[in-house]
Amino acid sequence: MGKIHFNKVTILGVGLLGASLALALRKKKLCGEIVGYGRKENNLKKAKRLKIIDSYNLDAKKACSDSDLIVFCVPVGKFLVTVGKIKDSLKKGALVTDVGSVKGRLVREMESLMPGGVNFVGSHPIAGSNKNGIGAANAELFSGAQCIVTPTKKTDAKALKKITVLWKSLGARIVNLNADEHDRVYAAVSHLPHIIAYALVNAVADINNSYIKFAGQGFKDSTRIASSSPEIWRDISLMNRNNILKFIKVFNKNLDRLGRHIKKSNSIALEKEFKKARTLREDVR
Amino acid sequence: MGKIHFNKVTILGVGLLGASLALALRKKKLCGEIVGYGRKENNLKKAKRLKIIDSYNLDAKKACSDSDLIVFCVPVGKFLVTVGKIKDSLKKGALVTDVGSVKGRLVREMESLMPGGVNFVGSHPIAGSNKNGIGAANAELFSGAQCIVTPTKKTDAKALKKITVLWKSLGARIVNLNADEHDRVYAAVSHLPHIIAYALVNAVADINNSYIKFAGQGFKDSTRIASSSPEIWRDISLMNRNNILKFIKVFNKNLDRLGRHIKKSNSIALEKEFKKARTLREDVR
Repeated sequence: MGKIHFNKVTILGVGLLGASLALALRKKKLCGEIVGYGRKENNLKKAKRLKIIDSYNLDAKKACSDSDLIVFCVPVGKFLVTVGKIKDSLKKGALVTDVGSVKGRLVREMESLMPGGVNFVGSHPIAGSNKNGIGAANAELFSGAQCIVTPTKKTDAKALKKITVLWKSLGARIVNLNADEHDRVYAAVSHLPHIIAYALVNAVADINNSYIKFAGQGFKDSTRIASSSPEIWRDISLMNRNNILKFIKVFNKNLDRLGRHIKKSNSIALEKEFKKARTLREDVR
Repeated sequence: MGKIHFNKVTILGVGLLGASLALALRKKKLCGEIVGYGRKENNLKKAKRLKIIDSYNLDAKKACSDSDLIVFCVPVGKFLVTVGKIKDSLKKGALVTDVGSVKGRLVREMESLMPGGVNFVGSHPIAGSNKNGIGAANAELFSGAQCIVTPTKKTDAKALKKITVLWKSLGARIVNLNADEHDRVYAAVSHLPHIIAYALVNAVADINNSYIKFAGQGFKDSTRIASSSPEIWRDISLMNRNNILKFIKVFNKNLDRLGRHIKKSNSIALEKEFKKARTLREDVR
């Protein structure tokens, strides 16, 4: 594996992922200076105080000036407007990547907005989920985690190599996926489960607000991801809506089938569906 | 808290809960002899070899003869047929309870089938969930766990006291609930989530069998309970079907609402629903 070093890194959006990335880069000595950018000055001040970043700027353009690596860690719905703010100040040779949970069309849009000499490579580290904010930031967040990288036909080969080495240096296992395939995969195994978790919590509240205190470990595990950032998941849901809506239908079909078996007291058919699910689930390591 | 001791205890169904109960009773020195009953002799032999039980009998009637405490740990769908087998051999003064996840009408039926001088008290320890079998048995399973007890108008007061002391002695926190209320509460916070988890795993398999290997912690947590025993959950789903079917409708209503907001790209409404769920979920300790 090659070595990499970035003199100046800009983290756009210093939340759980951005802050963890900053801590990891520093721990592995992969960078010089780290500048943070975000909307909330209090958060950036705290990040600086905690030595997560060296300095911050509320002006994205200034935050990115002269940076060698720029990482988009803002909600995916803010990517394009943020690119608009910074693209004229990116130096030639700068590398741009992200940690967003949606790829697909967004990757193509990001690529098309890069100025000449600046390369974008889409990344999606599978880490963090329901935890929020810099208080939960941790340099080992990516260690042992999968990181999906989504090169396209237009992706610069050297840039791709650098980004791959970057994530590997932070301990992640790289998987290359087509950007659109990524969005189908993660609509199924991540986005759909999050939406279901949100719906389940709200359903239990509708049924009876006082029942939630009887919840055991099963309910807690099933709904842990309903603690995820509403803002981040709003953006993910809307940006990957076609896949998500399609897969909600597949889920509904399966839930309706179980409901029909229950309604007809068809114990054999019901047990068969449950067995199928258990076998599939046991394969997940 | 009073002290209790049972000379002879019969565990009907030596699975995770039955075996853990046996281990817990022995650890806390609350009993003399423990006899196991079940369908599979191999399992009972193993339980005896592991000193979980002292002896076993494949004949339920013989297993219960002269027992002071009989605990129903078979799937709830087997309760009534098992009572039929044993009721003529229960000695006067014997105490009968269970660990079943469904109460309601089943409690009333169990009560009505008890011979004179034998008392039934419904119990539901909130412990164990997706783990299966005696391999996972553990004497501390009930320690710190909630245990719901569902006395009815007919419940003998001394029997209720004894059962309460029993569970407390094993470390559980007792909550008394009306038997029908219990079934509504647990339909919402346990049964519905299990059915949803089973449906979600099967939906992801329908979408694409190869996607499951990309699953992260979010999917794993959301579907952990899909590893639960299909047989046990078949019985629970059918015995509490009225509540479950009603609550599936409430869940569908919530999921449809989220789907509508996603379809219409209504980001404000979507974020509001997610925020509501997160707030409710954060209250679950």
